[in-house]
Amino acid sequence: MDTLARTDMDFEPYHGRRRVVISGVRPEIDAGQFPIKRIVGEKVEVEAWVFSDGHDHVFAELLYRPQDQADWRTAPMEPGRNDVWTGVFRPDRLGPYVYTVRAWIDVFGTWQHDLVKKFEAGQDVSVDLQIGLNLIGEAAGRAPERDGQRLRLSADEVAEQTEQARAVEMATDERLHELMNRYPDPSKVRTYERQLPVTVDRERARFSSWYEFFPRSAAAEPGTPGTLADAEALLPQVAEMGFDVVYLPPIHPIGRTHRKGRNNARTASPDDPGSPWAIGGEEGGHKAIHPELGTLEDFRRFIQAANDLGMEVAMDIAFQCSPDHPYVKEHPDWFKWRPDGSVQYAENPPKKYEDILPIHFETETWRELWEELTGVVLFWAEKGVRAFRVDNPHTKPFAFWDYLIGRVKAKYPDAIFLAEAFTRPNVMYRLAKVGFTQSYTYFTWRNARNEIVEYMQDLTRTEVAEHFRPNFWPNTPDILPQVLQFSGRPAFMTRLVLAATLSSNYGIYGPVYEQMVSAAVAGREEYLDSEKYEIRHWDRRRAGTLVPLIERINRIRRENAALQQTRDLHFLEIDNPLLLAYAKADEDETNFVVVVVNLDLHHRQSGWVRIPLERWEMDPSQPFMAHDLLSDDRYIWQGEWNYVELDPQLTPAHLFVLRRRLRREMDFDYFM
Amino acid sequence: MDTLARTDMDFEPYHGRRRVVISGVRPEIDAGQFPIKRIVGEKVEVEAWVFSDGHDHVFAELLYRPQDQADWRTAPMEPGRNDVWTGVFRPDRLGPYVYTVRAWIDVFGTWQHDLVKKFEAGQDVSVDLQIGLNLIGEAAGRAPERDGQRLRLSADEVAEQTEQARAVEMATDERLHELMNRYPDPSKVRTYERQLPVTVDRERARFSSWYEFFPRSAAAEPGTPGTLADAEALLPQVAEMGFDVVYLPPIHPIGRTHRKGRNNARTASPDDPGSPWAIGGEEGGHKAIHPELGTLEDFRRFIQAANDLGMEVAMDIAFQCSPDHPYVKEHPDWFKWRPDGSVQYAENPPKKYEDILPIHFETETWRELWEELTGVVLFWAEKGVRAFRVDNPHTKPFAFWDYLIGRVKAKYPDAIFLAEAFTRPNVMYRLAKVGFTQSYTYFTWRNARNEIVEYMQDLTRTEVAEHFRPNFWPNTPDILPQVLQFSGRPAFMTRLVLAATLSSNYGIYGPVYEQMVSAAVAGREEYLDSEKYEIRHWDRRRAGTLVPLIERINRIRRENAALQQTRDLHFLEIDNPLLLAYAKADEDETNFVVVVVNLDLHHRQSGWVRIPLERWEMDPSQPFMAHDLLSDDRYIWQGEWNYVELDPQLTPAHLFVLRRRLRREMDFDYFM
Repeated sequence: MDTLARTDMDFEPYHGRRRVVISGVRPEIDAGQFPIKRIVGEKVEVEAWVFSDGHDHVFAELLYRPQDQADWRTAPMEPGRNDVWTGVFRPDRLGPYVYTVRAWIDVFGTWQHDLVKKFEAGQDVSVDLQIGLNLIGEAAGRAPERDGQRLRLSADEVAEQTEQARAVEMATDERLHELMNRYPDPSKVRTYERQLPVTVDRERARFSSWYEFFPRSAAAEPGTPGTLADAEALLPQVAEMGFDVVYLPPIHPIGRTHRKGRNNARTASPDDPGSPWAIGGEEGGHKAIHPELGTLEDFRRFIQAANDLGMEVAMDIAFQCSPDHPYVKEHPDWFKWRPDGSVQYAENPPKKYEDILPIHFETETWRELWEELTGVVLFWAEKGVRAFRVDNPHTKPFAFWDYLIGRVKAKYPDAIFLAEAFTRPNVMYRLAKVGFTQSYTYFTWRNARNEIVEYMQDLTRTEVAEHFRPNFWPNTPDILPQVLQFSGRPAFMTRLVLAATLSSNYGIYGPVYEQMVSAAVAGREEYLDSEKYEIRHWDRRRAGTLVPLIERINRIRRENAALQQTRDLHFLEIDNPLLLAYAKADEDETNFVVVVVNLDLHHRQSGWVRIPLERWEMDPSQPFMAHDLLSDDRYIWQGEWNYVELDPQLTPAHLFVLRRRLRREMDFDYFM
Repeated sequence: MDTLARTDMDFEPYHGRRRVVISGVRPEIDAGQFPIKRIVGEKVEVEAWVFSDGHDHVFAELLYRPQDQADWRTAPMEPGRNDVWTGVFRPDRLGPYVYTVRAWIDVFGTWQHDLVKKFEAGQDVSVDLQIGLNLIGEAAGRAPERDGQRLRLSADEVAEQTEQARAVEMATDERLHELMNRYPDPSKVRTYERQLPVTVDRERARFSSWYEFFPRSAAAEPGTPGTLADAEALLPQVAEMGFDVVYLPPIHPIGRTHRKGRNNARTASPDDPGSPWAIGGEEGGHKAIHPELGTLEDFRRFIQAANDLGMEVAMDIAFQCSPDHPYVKEHPDWFKWRPDGSVQYAENPPKKYEDILPIHFETETWRELWEELTGVVLFWAEKGVRAFRVDNPHTKPFAFWDYLIGRVKAKYPDAIFLAEAFTRPNVMYRLAKVGFTQSYTYFTWRNARNEIVEYMQDLTRTEVAEHFRPNFWPNTPDILPQVLQFSGRPAFMTRLVLAATLSSNYGIYGPVYEQMVSAAVAGREEYLDSEKYEIRHWDRRRAGTLVPLIERINRIRRENAALQQTRDLHFLEIDNPLLLAYAKADEDETNFVVVVVNLDLHHRQSGWVRIPLERWEMDPSQPFMAHDLLSDDRYIWQGEWNYVELDPQLTPAHLFVLRRRLRREMDFDYFM
């Protein structure tokens, strides 16, 4: 196979014999500067405009390969309206892939097409037949032995026909056309000028359920600080709820200088534990474990226990230092120093965060700094961690993340990076482009119907869907949104269903969510008595928590492929603006899910929802079953428009799976 | 000024100190592969997303220059919502320009912003002031002498202030900020990785009125073949009608072999003149003039006469040959030969065009061929022709046009190429991208309201507007559209108004349009007794022609800048679907035109049209005058919604110019 150069035009300006044009190749992010994202086995559908001057037919094929292999694999492309050609490939292993498009004038196909037209118009085509035989002869010369023989045999058969009708029929055989298109004149083949990258991740990059908790609050009894061993004891409960990623806030030593007290007080009392994000003390920095939590060995055991339960552990990567971090003494050049000799604290004027020093990424010794920080992630990857939730990545240079994630994924292509960025859209998307696997989102503050619809359109219907994988969190230790402060259980239920069904990646800051904690610092979206600044204890045996609902939703997610992806999402027409309805289907179109959510957290709402029977090729004359997996109720529906009713005090949503082959099932259910 | 390299990333991967990001630069055609188009003095508005990690402010400026000059000129950019920065420049001469964007972290601006916040929060800012003074000192070191002194003086003044409030005030001066941003740290400046091209044409590329006629039909009296001298005698009439481009079908010798007879008959009688597009005979080829039309000297005189009347001459460039063309003997390798030794005629199976041989652009000697054909255009350019209407460019390779137009415009940057392409959208647009100045369009077949609206949205609201300049023709010698065959005078009037007001470039195949010739070959869109195959004579003194309407419309176009551009077009709400209403304004927003067209060619229609008062910053409480330049009627309107009524037998359209400063004018008109 040929290797790719830059555009033919660049090397051989105006090459007159390469007439085909390839343009508008999609997906293509910023002229190929950044990769699209897929998981192993996931479809990559590539489109291109392929055309030429004149009336000649063209032929296009898709080229793709793992980046570290030299040979292209090919996949067929099919022509559609307006010169659009489409092809599909599926990467079959982790790591970077590239793809591009190759095309040429389909000289033989054009000839076949014209031959038929002339013959049918009663013209003598003997000279035309000879032209075609010459074409076959040329291709035979380019083909390897066996195909060359095949082509020559076909040509001989056509040439020997005495009856012109029969010769035309044989010469216009479609298999002959296909064989000819394997051996185009290479001087007339054009390859698209860019090779477009793909990052291929493992399945959990696309489908994951995250559970966050503070190990120091994990003690079995109140009053004592929890340890990694205590946290390990909680893992079976987390697994039973159906989560697959256990995410811990930083577990490193915490600084003492300017340590924050409870509720973010400027001064701490001696027994205040400090914020886990004020990383580093005498006991060590980003590669150390807080002695009160345990040892590296305890952490290894924690990881193993999670793995044994089918889960994995995500670490918090927060690149900032307490004033006591060893880096401050060892690498003063990695911090900003003020003219008076004091170190620059983190601040967002006029606010100050005295327990944290930001790292000075623009330092002249940035190469050493970047190397060291990359080493931190590699250190934990060596210990078995493959998921990293990165704190505030939008306050560090994009090029730094490009560097770090590139290095880590070169060694651990299964690594997952979740960006904890809540900032302007361009910054969020740039982080995704430079390598973050998943990202936090604005979902946390999207409550009204139009807000949700518009945001989901941005995420699923634009180029963003190619590189940005949302991870929906209804709460985090930093954010107790207003909707959860004031609307009680219906709010917690609704936000959970929305997060877990709109996005295939979602997570909760767990203990407080299960228990529906809603007490906030007055006028703010900050938890009162936040675990960030003190040790809490959660009574997990309490009745009335959300645990059963969480468990059910996670099971539904595991059992329905439609919910294991985010891109195939369609909002449905519904005649009540307080109800939100959407549908998802899996790639095979065998699993159809319809979700109807009551966005009115106070009143019963009802309406008629339109089921997309046509899109899913369902027969509108046949009844079908809508099985609500949340309530286990089953409805026999028929036709597009169907009635729904939801009482927020009882259930926030319908989560229907539709069954197409209904007749037998219906009889069965009906008479049971 | 610095020169541009490819992306910084490419040369110095992960440069840690260059934190600013520039992306989404628009307009940008196919990653900068093709130029946008403008005329001299026309605005180029450039947008880019410019942002950085963190909370630092950024600063961006637009760079542009004529391609042949090394030094960049700069234009300011202004930040808008969501990190979008916008800047404007106006190319001031013909030929290629390039532009790009340069940006950096606005360190000093960020510092000023934070300083004010801290000071206002009551913090001591003495150390912060020192940081700022250090920044000023560094910039002073980079600045040339005078600005260096200015910066040092400012720093000294701030340093000497004993009162902190006063020091803060002086340090946060906006002029100081501007001065600082002239001398950013070059190691932290990023320039966008691509230089984006602009083709700068003369005004007629954007605003032109074309008139096509056959010189051989131009004789003063019927029965004799017209000459270039006869054609010259018609020029004053064409100029009086207000056209500025006189376009002649090919004026070269016509082949005799397989010459077509009247109405495209397969055999010609001896006195049939043949199709002018069957170019070449014993008398010469593409550089010769048909002896019956005159001499090269006559043609020069014709050009001069047109120029003297404020018009220019457009030639027809049809790269195809009659079998008698000198090329056929001299360069047999430029044609396709069949296995039986015969030459390949033009055909579109099963149709044959025996009077024309297509040129074989894929020939192995394509370089010589392209050189020769480019020479044809250069030959006529040397004779004073600067406008070329190119016949069927979509049947020749795109790379060929790229080559030819590039060569010609390098020598004659004022050359205009009109593509006579009626084919698939991608092919049309590609021809524009590779260099055609203007193009024929689908307008000829767009009659219904939604067809016109959708097509105009494609042309004005998408990237197409950046490179594709439409030229609207209601008819051509090849196309007598159905609407003109069956709907009489109202159709000719309506189509003329639409062409001349929707598009700033338009043209008519004149004599038959003036006389409203509607006789077609049965069932086809082909003129009966077409001038393509015979000599006709048109009685220009006949009463009742469209000449007065044409003259009036061309005058209105000349007097209203709003109609001299196509991109600023907005369809207006109107409550009758048979009426089409649209508005145009010039770049200065001093000329406001509203057109209302009755698309019902048979019945009187009326309705209420909504005038975009808000867009044009007109006071809705003030009456204003709508002056119909077609009828010369004046209406006093007030408010957004106003009544219109059109009878197709009387007038096809209103062509209002709106006058904002109405009060005085109204009084004046009113009492006259």
